Amino acid sequence: MKTLAAQVITPEDLLKHWQGHRTLTRRVIEAFPEKDFFEFSIAGMRTFAKLTDELLAIGVPGLKGIVTKEIQPFNEGAEKLIFKAQYLEKWDKATAEINEYWQKLSIEDFNETFNLFGQYEFPVIQNILYFVDNEIHHRGQGYVYLRALGIEPPFFWER
Amino acid sequence: MKTLAAQVITPEDLLKHWQGHRTLTRRVIEAFPEKDFFEFSIAGMRTFAKLTDELLAIGVPGLKGIVTKEIQPFNEGAEKLIFKAQYLEKWDKATAEINEYWQKLSIEDFNETFNLFGQYEFPVIQNILYFVDNEIHHRGQGYVYLRALGIEPPFFWER
Repeated sequence: MKTLAAQVITPEDLLKHWQGHRTLTRRVIEAFPEKDFFEFSIAGMRTFAKLTDELLAIGVPGLKGIVTKEIQPFNEGAEKLIFKAQYLEKWDKATAEINEYWQKLSIEDFNETFNLFGQYEFPVIQNILYFVDNEIHHRGQGYVYLRALGIEPPFFWER
Repeated sequence: MKTLAAQVITPEDLLKHWQGHRTLTRRVIEAFPEKDFFEFSIAGMRTFAKLTDELLAIGVPGLKGIVTKEIQPFNEGAEKLIFKAQYLEKWDKATAEINEYWQKLSIEDFNETFNLFGQYEFPVIQNILYFVDNEIHHRGQGYVYLRALGIEPPFFWER
């Protein structure tokens, strides 16, 4: 939906912002050696594969819930992926689906309250910012894993 | 500045979002033992004190530049702090200054281009989102440091 009024951020730019972060996270997934993606962690934290499971369980399912207003419980790792290539494929599919669902959001929708996963009743904008923030947070962990593995992570500003 | 048009996010809510993250980062600083805040790191990465230097060098100086339209170079760790208490004091001072400068931003300002630190020429909204994202990213590192030190980090959603 287009508007003539000035916006702090437009829906188009917020989508670009999110997808820019998703592009960077995809690079981080790619940077992990196959084995370490599934096995490496520090101090008993989750592997980057497990963290990616979480991100995949939030992005499309969360946005789909917001757009369709259908409340579905959080469902992580329902599909068991065993190769990095499968994660990348699912990531790319999610990229396209996010772009599609996003088109259905009007500016007014961002201020509506939605009970995300039947657990987090907040304005839509807060839920969406949470998706992005949570991804940055876990990817930050991934950067430490990569460094600990002796691998140079992608530049943070490369989107 | 108030507007009657619907916003994806209002300036007030974006400030609340940023300050919520800053509150969480403050908790992470507090969670570090004094010595580890200045000395602990993984794989040769920066200590959390050094990362906090960066965050302090970005927040107020960045926002001040945007508001006053005065381009100053990036200047990290100009003031040498040697106790965690000094960092927390500076953090709180920055919190108040950010609130003050923020009041001077109109909705239109977020779309203006500003050459941040004479290096990053982007719309103001992108610079501000970068401040927040960069903080989440480094704080994510801090979470791994805390875990590696056997310390439970604060909940990510506690703001």
